[in-house]
Amino acid sequence: MCRWLAYSGPPLLLEELLFKPENSLVRQSLSASKGIVPTNGDGFGLGWYGTQRLPGIFHDTLPAWNDANLLNLSEQIRSALFFAHVRASTGTSTSRENCHPFRWRHMLFMHNGQIGGYRLLRRELEQMIPYQIFEARGGTTDSEAFFLLACGNGLDEDVQDALKRTVTQILDAMSKSGTDEPFRMTAAISDGDKIYGLRYSSDHQSPTLYYATGGAIQVNNGLVEFSKGDAAALILSEPLDDQLDDWIEIPDGHILVANGGVVEVIPFQP
Amino acid sequence: MCRWLAYSGPPLLLEELLFKPENSLVRQSLSASKGIVPTNGDGFGLGWYGTQRLPGIFHDTLPAWNDANLLNLSEQIRSALFFAHVRASTGTSTSRENCHPFRWRHMLFMHNGQIGGYRLLRRELEQMIPYQIFEARGGTTDSEAFFLLACGNGLDEDVQDALKRTVTQILDAMSKSGTDEPFRMTAAISDGDKIYGLRYSSDHQSPTLYYATGGAIQVNNGLVEFSKGDAAALILSEPLDDQLDDWIEIPDGHILVANGGVVEVIPFQP
Amino acid sequence: MCRWLAYSGPPLLLEELLFKPENSLVRQSLSASKGIVPTNGDGFGLGWYGTQRLPGIFHDTLPAWNDANLLNLSEQIRSALFFAHVRASTGTSTSRENCHPFRWRHMLFMHNGQIGGYRLLRRELEQMIPYQIFEARGGTTDSEAFFLLACGNGLDEDVQDALKRTVTQILDAMSKSGTDEPFRMTAAISDGDKIYGLRYSSDHQSPTLYYATGGAIQVNNGLVEFSKGDAAALILSEPLDDQLDDWIEIPDGHILVANGGVVEVIPFQP
Amino acid sequence: MCRWLAYSGPPLLLEELLFKPENSLVRQSLSASKGIVPTNGDGFGLGWYGTQRLPGIFHDTLPAWNDANLLNLSEQIRSALFFAHVRASTGTSTSRENCHPFRWRHMLFMHNGQIGGYRLLRRELEQMIPYQIFEARGGTTDSEAFFLLACGNGLDEDVQDALKRTVTQILDAMSKSGTDEPFRMTAAISDGDKIYGLRYSSDHQSPTLYYATGGAIQVNNGLVEFSKGDAAALILSEPLDDQLDDWIEIPDGHILVANGGVVEVIPFQP
Repeated sequence: MCRWLAYSGPPLLLEELLFKPENSLVRQSLSASKGIVPTNGDGFGLGWYGTQRLPGIFHDTLPAWNDANLLNLSEQIRSALFFAHVRASTGTSTSRENCHPFRWRHMLFMHNGQIGGYRLLRRELEQMIPYQIFEARGGTTDSEAFFLLACGNGLDEDVQDALKRTVTQILDAMSKSGTDEPFRMTAAISDGDKIYGLRYSSDHQSPTLYYATGGAIQVNNGLVEFSKGDAAALILSEPLDDQLDDWIEIPDGHILVANGGVVEVIPFQP
Repeated sequence: MCRWLAYSGPPLLLEELLFKPENSLVRQSLSASKGIVPTNGDGFGLGWYGTQRLPGIFHDTLPAWNDANLLNLSEQIRSALFFAHVRASTGTSTSRENCHPFRWRHMLFMHNGQIGGYRLLRRELEQMIPYQIFEARGGTTDSEAFFLLACGNGLDEDVQDALKRTVTQILDAMSKSGTDEPFRMTAAISDGDKIYGLRYSSDHQSPTLYYATGGAIQVNNGLVEFSKGDAAALILSEPLDDQLDDWIEIPDGHILVANGGVVEVIPFQP
Repeated sequence: MCRWLAYSGPPLLLEELLFKPENSLVRQSLSASKGIVPTNGDGFGLGWYGTQRLPGIFHDTLPAWNDANLLNLSEQIRSALFFAHVRASTGTSTSRENCHPFRWRHMLFMHNGQIGGYRLLRRELEQMIPYQIFEARGGTTDSEAFFLLACGNGLDEDVQDALKRTVTQILDAMSKSGTDEPFRMTAAISDGDKIYGLRYSSDHQSPTLYYATGGAIQVNNGLVEFSKGDAAALILSEPLDDQLDDWIEIPDGHILVANGGVVEVIPFQP
Repeated sequence: MCRWLAYSGPPLLLEELLFKPENSLVRQSLSASKGIVPTNGDGFGLGWYGTQRLPGIFHDTLPAWNDANLLNLSEQIRSALFFAHVRASTGTSTSRENCHPFRWRHMLFMHNGQIGGYRLLRRELEQMIPYQIFEARGGTTDSEAFFLLACGNGLDEDVQDALKRTVTQILDAMSKSGTDEPFRMTAAISDGDKIYGLRYSSDHQSPTLYYATGGAIQVNNGLVEFSKGDAAALILSEPLDDQLDDWIEIPDGHILVANGGVVEVIPFQP
């Protein structure tokens, strides 16, 4: 499994959330608390919206806790909406093409979970992706396949509808294949305006997913501080510190929609 | 395009052919003489048969002229049949998964060339690969797709037949797609016993391909020396030195079959 | 040898100069026109001043022409003063620690050239670096050694004086060592305000160095366009296009000081 | 800290010990049992003696648990004496130059531990290395510095004597520097004939070090089996399985000398 975080709100340097908290994402790459596996050293990635519609992305296969480029970039890149992900592979190879977040046009996507029986389903899923989108297929992960399928289902027009149709398609395919493995997912999607955080599994055993909001977010002595207000939101796999009151769990089978720090959490039914 | 060489014969240290000749493969990675592009710095790879049926493989995305691991391994690995390849990408990304030679079971394959209109044909070709073989698909190159298709066509049972059927399938697919780009190929295939060197293009403009034979092959002062006999064969994209009499061109539209240094060159008609 | 460029002026996206010109720096990494070697594929690096005193840096050992991260970052990073460098090693290994530009505090430095007889001088030069600065020594290049020596000579207080004293120290050490190899250098230094471009060799055979100025700089159809004015300056190893009138050669044995686009070129006497 | 193992005896495929045991070295890279830190993902390396005096080496910065090259090489390389190491950095950067084992001439060396106060001692120690050996200094680790110092002290002539003199020199330097950090070491050294395993610390708190011997060593169902005899020896940071009777701890302040599987363990006094 993997760990990730997504932020929207007043522009922040990436390092504020990637390095400064006591349980920062980079620390989680070495030793996460709530993941199935503690170590997430199979690559990492960043996605961020700057001054353009097209977000930037950056990936590498070195463990995040070690990478000078990640540190240096985090000290410089300031963004009002960014994604960061550290990977623990569920079978596919470690390569830059298999790192999250994935990007298609102005959309960003990152994922923690798995498509049950993916090994045997891969090509079938790839065939369901419209060709102009399939051309973007650079790796072999179920995560990227899910994303491109969702893009083919109109993710850039209606995120929730596209997600529902994609999950449905995949559950159908899994069912027909006779696999007894589950579908499990936490995922973040963005179009540069909103962030969507999805938590859904076929067996109601989704990986963890939390969020927190405030007027502004900053980190002091390893603790994440939220000022009053609703301009900023954090959606993430596990809390960045142990001030547990700050972190609200997103219930299984729900999707969060964040507009700056204005958040709604609604049931997700594929 | 790329550059490659294949050797069979008395066991040699890889460095003998990869580093010692005046126009060694590693020098060709920096500055080839007969390639479409001089530089082949988009990754490299080795494949070699040792004491087992399964050949070893080694790939990296760093340019070959620079890689200490390649040098150190070449100084140690001794093999009676090996492949080496330096890559110049025709469009797909630089990653270890896209480096040659490719391996499936005990078969090795490497390639210089392109499938015309591949960008639009990729998925269709992937669909023609039997699933158990498709599982091995780790990258996005036309080279790997060709190879896995050929494996699906019984490459491990009858190399020449499988190659003919594969080329035919691909030319059909290209024709239907309406592409005006050609199919061009030099490729090496091995099952650990023989080496096959194919030179074929739809427009009779194949990249260059040469061979040389001898009792044994060694390199002195940058020049490749062949003793009398027929135990050793070299099949390669371009000569390793400028002693042009040593290097025999394989005519376009032909396939070479090498059994040790016993070689036959026959027309190839898909 | 290597190729580099430095820019100061109205903020630009890095891609404008790194990718768009017909002879962009990335194209020079594959095939430079005026370098001793055409290919500069032994790593690359960026340094840029953003919103902070500390500049960002980014390095990798993959050839620049191939690196998706470099492309993606260049599409996003906008800076009023940045450095970019593609490396052709003069002997030391290819590693991220050996990529330029080098950074110490708020200073950036990049280099094309060599210290004559460096192989035997390395440790002696390293001993001349004050210890707190020597701690920053991460690689093995003569370039980094030069830079840290210059930092020890007060580069962050008076660039020209520090450069003169450093060159003098090195020429003395070279002389005592009895080497017959020359000292050759083009280098760029910045403190975030000005850019200094030095062109100096012990044998008056420096690598090439050019500059150009304008009100603003942009690229259209591969050609670099300079509007009227003196807000922007480019200092670089070789012209980015073949509009030769735009590019002014910095005479050997001179140093250029650029303040935005206001430039003076004065003799450099160590 | 790091984890390592050294083997001498009847030729083995590297994979037998690197991958097959239930607590193989590769598994330890992800999750070691007895290390200060569980994860050793800051690079890995191999060193092995084949048919030549010069051993081969192979290093990479990707975590060992993920590297296809490491797996493929381990399936092919058979050696009667080899070293393998997975790294957890104590401060210096992750790069191929900082991976173990280190090689000088026909000597191999790998290390787990630290030189107390190394940050301030680095250059002083480097100055003590004879220049022709210092030329080999490619990285920045205390491990490599120790090794090259020992080479300068005649490691290739008398291992135990060189180790004693080196440890003494370093303890002196540490003492003069006033550091309160300890010197801690487990290390393996080989000349291609014998393996030396050293366990020594200034504060008697060395990392763990074990050994085992037998006529031959093989792995079945994850368990390491030793046949009767004394042809084979394994020296290693922690046991490869939980059959604890097989693994003998080397007492702190002792050095083991293995000649094939004939082993002596003697006190080590610098």
